[in-house]
Amino acid sequence: MASRNNLVIGQSGGATAVINASLVGAVDSAMQDARFDGIYGMKYGVEGLLKEELIDLRQQPAGLWPRLLNTPSAALGSCRYKLREEDPERVIEILRRYDIHALLYIGGNDSADTTHRVAKAAQRMGYDLQALSVPKTIDNDLPHTDHCPGYGSAARFIALATIDSTMNTKSIPWHYPVKVIETMGRDAGWLTASAALGKRDEDDAPHILLIPEQPFNEQRFLQQVEETYRRVGYVIIVTAESLRDEQGRALGAVGQVGLDAFQHPLLSGAAQQLVELVKSKLKLRARFEKPGDLQRMASNCISITDRDEAYLVGKMGTQALLNGEHDKMVTLVRHSEPAYFCTTGLVALSEVANVQRLMPDSYLNSSKTMVTQAFYDYAFPLIGEALPVHAKLEQIRISS
Amino acid sequence: MASRNNLVIGQSGGATAVINASLVGAVDSAMQDARFDGIYGMKYGVEGLLKEELIDLRQQPAGLWPRLLNTPSAALGSCRYKLREEDPERVIEILRRYDIHALLYIGGNDSADTTHRVAKAAQRMGYDLQALSVPKTIDNDLPHTDHCPGYGSAARFIALATIDSTMNTKSIPWHYPVKVIETMGRDAGWLTASAALGKRDEDDAPHILLIPEQPFNEQRFLQQVEETYRRVGYVIIVTAESLRDEQGRALGAVGQVGLDAFQHPLLSGAAQQLVELVKSKLKLRARFEKPGDLQRMASNCISITDRDEAYLVGKMGTQALLNGEHDKMVTLVRHSEPAYFCTTGLVALSEVANVQRLMPDSYLNSSKTMVTQAFYDYAFPLIGEALPVHAKLEQIRISS
Repeated sequence: MASRNNLVIGQSGGATAVINASLVGAVDSAMQDARFDGIYGMKYGVEGLLKEELIDLRQQPAGLWPRLLNTPSAALGSCRYKLREEDPERVIEILRRYDIHALLYIGGNDSADTTHRVAKAAQRMGYDLQALSVPKTIDNDLPHTDHCPGYGSAARFIALATIDSTMNTKSIPWHYPVKVIETMGRDAGWLTASAALGKRDEDDAPHILLIPEQPFNEQRFLQQVEETYRRVGYVIIVTAESLRDEQGRALGAVGQVGLDAFQHPLLSGAAQQLVELVKSKLKLRARFEKPGDLQRMASNCISITDRDEAYLVGKMGTQALLNGEHDKMVTLVRHSEPAYFCTTGLVALSEVANVQRLMPDSYLNSSKTMVTQAFYDYAFPLIGEALPVHAKLEQIRISS
Repeated sequence: MASRNNLVIGQSGGATAVINASLVGAVDSAMQDARFDGIYGMKYGVEGLLKEELIDLRQQPAGLWPRLLNTPSAALGSCRYKLREEDPERVIEILRRYDIHALLYIGGNDSADTTHRVAKAAQRMGYDLQALSVPKTIDNDLPHTDHCPGYGSAARFIALATIDSTMNTKSIPWHYPVKVIETMGRDAGWLTASAALGKRDEDDAPHILLIPEQPFNEQRFLQQVEETYRRVGYVIIVTAESLRDEQGRALGAVGQVGLDAFQHPLLSGAAQQLVELVKSKLKLRARFEKPGDLQRMASNCISITDRDEAYLVGKMGTQALLNGEHDKMVTLVRHSEPAYFCTTGLVALSEVANVQRLMPDSYLNSSKTMVTQAFYDYAFPLIGEALPVHAKLEQIRISS
């Protein structure tokens, strides 16, 4: 059966609300081309592949794919597995056994590294393989792509959560005048910054963004909270969970007792630390919110633009394989004329693997705790339809 | 101007995603009747009324009301103010000064108490006043009404959040096999229980509900987590933020150092306590999510049924005033033939004020950590359109 040409697709890293759209795009495209025989899925990414856990994507019910297009999370299962030294060669042996000569891996930085190492092993071992990576991450921190599928939906969620949650604070500002919302985003501030996408003017929420690229300065923070509280009557702060102080210590780890059972630092959360700080130093009532996995998964907050682009990169991944491309990642290329749209490109995986793209300085104003117009111009097209502008009563006073 | 008959409307307590629908219902109805002269709004509830902060609801732009129907939070502003002994008579003096003879107060238990005390003061002082209360609370804990406007939307949010967030856990169960989601709900488990509305079978999430009516037993909890983890591979726990142990101590307060700056106990949160417990006792990786105000405010998670019923109770509040009713609360009365719908009734405020309706035993199974079919029958109609059933791949394995 040496003539068989099977394709395997995997999903890896933190799932997103639209990572399945990339899977659907890749499968749709592969189904339409006679050059692929089997179309397989890795169960739980490369970790499952190493256990030979493969499922048949050709035999799925036809009605499934359109539904999966709008289903959050990784339908194949995901992993956060770092290949050990001997793993890439084991992967090749398994691919050989299953006549797999094309591999598409949907994921972030770590997944790009995995794909790259498998590609190199194939070359070393003289195995005929094409391996490509398809971008995905809510953290938006992959280089050489305008943005990452998954980010637009998570950004939409965070922006809308900030708008809606602030509505409660505004109804009774003195009850809890300070609120801290904690976002994901790893070492990059993209997701935290997206909280500002519903902000209309200076006094509107959020008032303070704390991104991981900027070391946290307690004194400056407290001053800013107090000044905003005096001016606006309440303060909405959005912080990255990975916020670090000027010594590089994670804020949530300060005062904690070492590592958890799995040797991970006990990060009880930056937001809670900030709340304690505001309560003890400013004597203001404060509380925090931590939407957690909901920011990557909210099925009723998917950006249609994001979903369509996730589908596109999946489809173009398959197309690139059919065009003989290898050891590359699909990228999104932005166009602005006549209006925003994206095409795709390719970049060598060696340029992507383990490289993080952080927020550029031009997206932050002089306070480093708020974004600039350039960020709005960048991010608005990604989150899909316009955010709601909530109605409010005219303050026409009655006198006796 | 003794002949003027002005109406004042207030919103009070924790806001909801649909409390403005009640305001719109009340105003629409009042506008259509010639018997009211001025239609006023209290800014920040009775606390604003005591400061004579009134706004004119007749002079609002016409296009505002349909938009406000779908705007979360209390557009008038809210308060959590407990009337001091002298306040009810001060309220009457102010109402007299503004020729206000009808009062509609949209709120929960405390607000019903406020309305009742104002009603009694009017009677005592011989002031011609009709005062009615319109139900509102995400906690669903008002007696004598089938359910409370605001609950359906919050329940929909919690049910959907549990479904979506679990999708992430399922994509990579061993990464954080235990997740705790913390809900509001005061002393009642209604909102926590709503997390189960997307549950399809025993192994489906959520696996454990911890409601405040049931004292938390650490040993039993850990057993249940371990047993579920062995059987399912991951455990989704939904807890009330007000969970208490068998000594009646709030779980989030255990190990904390007394009171905050405002003499409120430092409740860092039941969820975080549970996470620490699971990590230290079972050596399982665990984390928590705390959607916070989003559960009362999510504008993209409004139950249309809930919104329509919130409008209805507002409208019927005005109608009841016009019918000469006094010192009562509007209630929702459920009908099941030919399909679910609600009409309204009235109950004396003396029967409502400060009375909490907790979850009945019939809604809990023998473990006391999961709901029964009776609860599903009760709650499903309240959350609006059916919850999504997310697609999944058929596990058709490939062999080499």
